[in-house]
Amino acid sequence: MADNLAQAKHDLAIANRILAHEGIIDAFGHVSMRHPTNPDRYLISKSRSPEVVETADIFEFTLDSQPVKPLPKGIQGYGELVIHGEIYKARPDVNAISHHHGMAMIPFCNIGKPLKAMYHMGAQIGEKVAFWDSRDEFGDTCLLVLKPEEGRSLAKALGPGWLVLMRRHGATVAGRNLIELTFRTIYQYRNAQVQLMTEQLGEISPLTPGESALAEDRNLQPKAKARAWEYWCTRLKKAGEFPAPLKFKAVAKSATKSDKSSTAKRKKRR
Amino acid sequence: MADNLAQAKHDLAIANRILAHEGIIDAFGHVSMRHPTNPDRYLISKSRSPEVVETADIFEFTLDSQPVKPLPKGIQGYGELVIHGEIYKARPDVNAISHHHGMAMIPFCNIGKPLKAMYHMGAQIGEKVAFWDSRDEFGDTCLLVLKPEEGRSLAKALGPGWLVLMRRHGATVAGRNLIELTFRTIYQYRNAQVQLMTEQLGEISPLTPGESALAEDRNLQPKAKARAWEYWCTRLKKAGEFPAPLKFKAVAKSATKSDKSSTAKRKKRR
Amino acid sequence: MADNLAQAKHDLAIANRILAHEGIIDAFGHVSMRHPTNPDRYLISKSRSPEVVETADIFEFTLDSQPVKPLPKGIQGYGELVIHGEIYKARPDVNAISHHHGMAMIPFCNIGKPLKAMYHMGAQIGEKVAFWDSRDEFGDTCLLVLKPEEGRSLAKALGPGWLVLMRRHGATVAGRNLIELTFRTIYQYRNAQVQLMTEQLGEISPLTPGESALAEDRNLQPKAKARAWEYWCTRLKKAGEFPAPLKFKAVAKSATKSDKSSTAKRKKRR
Amino acid sequence: MADNLAQAKHDLAIANRILAHEGIIDAFGHVSMRHPTNPDRYLISKSRSPEVVETADIFEFTLDSQPVKPLPKGIQGYGELVIHGEIYKARPDVNAISHHHGMAMIPFCNIGKPLKAMYHMGAQIGEKVAFWDSRDEFGDTCLLVLKPEEGRSLAKALGPGWLVLMRRHGATVAGRNLIELTFRTIYQYRNAQVQLMTEQLGEISPLTPGESALAEDRNLQPKAKARAWEYWCTRLKKAGEFPAPLKFKAVAKSATKSDKSSTAKRKKRR
Repeated sequence: MADNLAQAKHDLAIANRILAHEGIIDAFGHVSMRHPTNPDRYLISKSRSPEVVETADIFEFTLDSQPVKPLPKGIQGYGELVIHGEIYKARPDVNAISHHHGMAMIPFCNIGKPLKAMYHMGAQIGEKVAFWDSRDEFGDTCLLVLKPEEGRSLAKALGPGWLVLMRRHGATVAGRNLIELTFRTIYQYRNAQVQLMTEQLGEISPLTPGESALAEDRNLQPKAKARAWEYWCTRLKKAGEFPAPLKFKAVAKSATKSDKSSTAKRKKRR
Repeated sequence: MADNLAQAKHDLAIANRILAHEGIIDAFGHVSMRHPTNPDRYLISKSRSPEVVETADIFEFTLDSQPVKPLPKGIQGYGELVIHGEIYKARPDVNAISHHHGMAMIPFCNIGKPLKAMYHMGAQIGEKVAFWDSRDEFGDTCLLVLKPEEGRSLAKALGPGWLVLMRRHGATVAGRNLIELTFRTIYQYRNAQVQLMTEQLGEISPLTPGESALAEDRNLQPKAKARAWEYWCTRLKKAGEFPAPLKFKAVAKSATKSDKSSTAKRKKRR
Repeated sequence: MADNLAQAKHDLAIANRILAHEGIIDAFGHVSMRHPTNPDRYLISKSRSPEVVETADIFEFTLDSQPVKPLPKGIQGYGELVIHGEIYKARPDVNAISHHHGMAMIPFCNIGKPLKAMYHMGAQIGEKVAFWDSRDEFGDTCLLVLKPEEGRSLAKALGPGWLVLMRRHGATVAGRNLIELTFRTIYQYRNAQVQLMTEQLGEISPLTPGESALAEDRNLQPKAKARAWEYWCTRLKKAGEFPAPLKFKAVAKSATKSDKSSTAKRKKRR
Repeated sequence: MADNLAQAKHDLAIANRILAHEGIIDAFGHVSMRHPTNPDRYLISKSRSPEVVETADIFEFTLDSQPVKPLPKGIQGYGELVIHGEIYKARPDVNAISHHHGMAMIPFCNIGKPLKAMYHMGAQIGEKVAFWDSRDEFGDTCLLVLKPEEGRSLAKALGPGWLVLMRRHGATVAGRNLIELTFRTIYQYRNAQVQLMTEQLGEISPLTPGESALAEDRNLQPKAKARAWEYWCTRLKKAGEFPAPLKFKAVAKSATKSDKSSTAKRKKRR
């Protein structure tokens, strides 16, 4: 994926819609990726629900979360852009980020009970999940991460990990690339759903650190990621939700054709 | 929204269907708004499930919950109109009302355990949720709010707030306008779903009053409301559920065209 | 509904599909109604999942659960026909019956904890739900109600009520007519779902007997039943699931037309 | 079913999609069947999510889990093929196998609390469910069953039964044929869902061994299996998910026609 900017934007629109379609992001939340060739920029949609993000909605931002070019009139960015910018600054190994309020994750965010890997697919939560409470440093706020210093504080809490729970708010997830990010976001969430069910049945029995490391490594091999990505994309397509790519003169005719028909179909369904 | 009566009726039909489509209202429940130019009237559908309400089903009522014009033969109003009329009388700042029996809200209505904001999106429930038990004043009833005095009692219990739980019955929600009402209804409900999950995991840790006030204010800013409204409407459209507007000669051709095609598509799917 | 046999069969196919579409019946379970003009017979589908029952699948049986005419070659009746026949024999006021294994009902069937009306819509469960354990009289069986004496025993347990829980098996519901049956089956089930959630939150506070009687009476008024029936039918139609009626020469052209188109659409979707 | 190889592959693709469509298998998991005429081989898809498996994705493997013919370039088999091969070796009576991580099953897999039959449909779990913990014999692993000795260990744990829970991983299900396997997989899972709900309501009251044996026998009679298979297939067809069969010259024209249209429709929806 993402060998050029147009492809990167299309992939990012797909990832936005996958995380909505799989039930993790609703009207709010956002997904970004680092610019494919310029590591000092990142790509993210204008302020819009991930389920309805189009490829053309995606703009470039500096790591200080300023638009590279002024946004078109009437277009606004997300309020919490600093989540993305500050993590990209702090973590050169992170190339994609999601932020969500998936409902089955909130009980853990609210109470502070640690998420633990319940099964091999949950190994993506890592050995110890970072936890951030905005009250500790900033007192009463609207809970959103709006100021650069709030973003920096969150990035610090994330540390070298891939998931940070935000108390009474939601979760922020990082990945080395967009597919890994999607995989982590979805299976961390499935693990939270499973842990909720398991906690009410008896005493949980999580993976050992060794099992976690081995399973996470296995899950993130190219074969497994490709299989999952095909599955999520096919589900989007079946639902008529697959986003259209940008149109370029250089694109081969046959490709354009199928893309157009896909767009047409989607629009028709609406 | 709602700069004229036809638009207001269309918006109200949309809000009806959104609250059904998002899983909060089933066969029963109802949604109303104050007349856009005459504050002594309100608009509400004839007795029909919100999921299937058409723009043309919406009629005008006085604040005493009498139809402004006699209803067409065979058409009946909802049995609980006084919920709407009496709250509009008591609360000039309220311009839209929903009443529902969303299943995840009923445990709180039944037991009387207070709803608390579990995360920033739940700040819409306010700091203290009003609670009304029909038994206190009226003894054994069918639980419905059918008499003006029952409506007045409920309006009194609501007080200056935006949500009142009705014991062993459901919830009534108020808003300053239709989008705010939709936003409150949905995110109060999501908060109830989250609280149910959190209560079984451990001791809940709600927002402070300061956080609640700041988050509620932030959530109800125009940008956030517009984003959520676009999301809900798009979901309705994708499902072929978006209601058709009323037809007027004055409507521009292009608008009529797209509206017609939307109606046609919806009818076709049925 | 049901002023003649063809209409009755069509209505019964609709009720079958509604109870599947609303999530209560899966591959197994069945729905019947008493013959509209001959009270010594009842109508029920051949052995087929309610979700896929067609109007033409419905046959007539005597109250001894024998087919009035020999079933066509290769066609079999349900194994548990005696549930229907024996209740129709014992209860002349019952004109429609459903039997299901809805998953949220099974915990109550398994443990024997009484279902209680959690909210006005749950008043349909009645004041005290009958409970039948096949072990008491018949010892180890396959749990199904296959023999006339098992059907009679179940009918006796039902008594004058409208719902009997069958231990480690499911529920059997009775109604004065098909819409009432559908209403009872759905809202008893919703009440079970709500009670499961409420029991884990704290001590339940059910309706008083007086409230239950008043609410049940109100819920079953023609206006409420008609509203719910329109809602469930519209949902079936939107999903392309509305069953086609039988074809008769006498049917008016316009009616046939719309019915045909509905059938065609449904078939096309499959 | 499965009187020849082409039909067997088509049936296997159907079973893959049913287990995905009914909510038990997500991106991962797999389903196989023994070769219809050569018991020393089995059929299974290339590495692909069951929801998107096509008939043409299915290849033949030896019981040592080696492809009978080299797989086409770029095609890979599932990592856990030895689950299938080693069970087919150990159990000549097993002709179909599924492996899944259905979320409601994981709490039982994690904790080790025994699954018990909550209702007659759950009798498919058998009297005592086998339990396998990869740690016992192999210590820290990635949890997957990748080596022949791991597969043999799992097959040994399965013993003469039809279900083995794999600690912190998932479930493996066996059946005498593909429909029985599908039936077992689905209703074992429904029973786990019901048991989760029942455990939070009070003390469970499972079937007696006698009831379990009688109910399992009844559920697996041809009539019941055929009814359920028709139901699951119709649901796939309605969703546009029914897989296309392989194309052969010998296939009758009318059959090809309907198959083609079904494929076309499915592709169109995507």
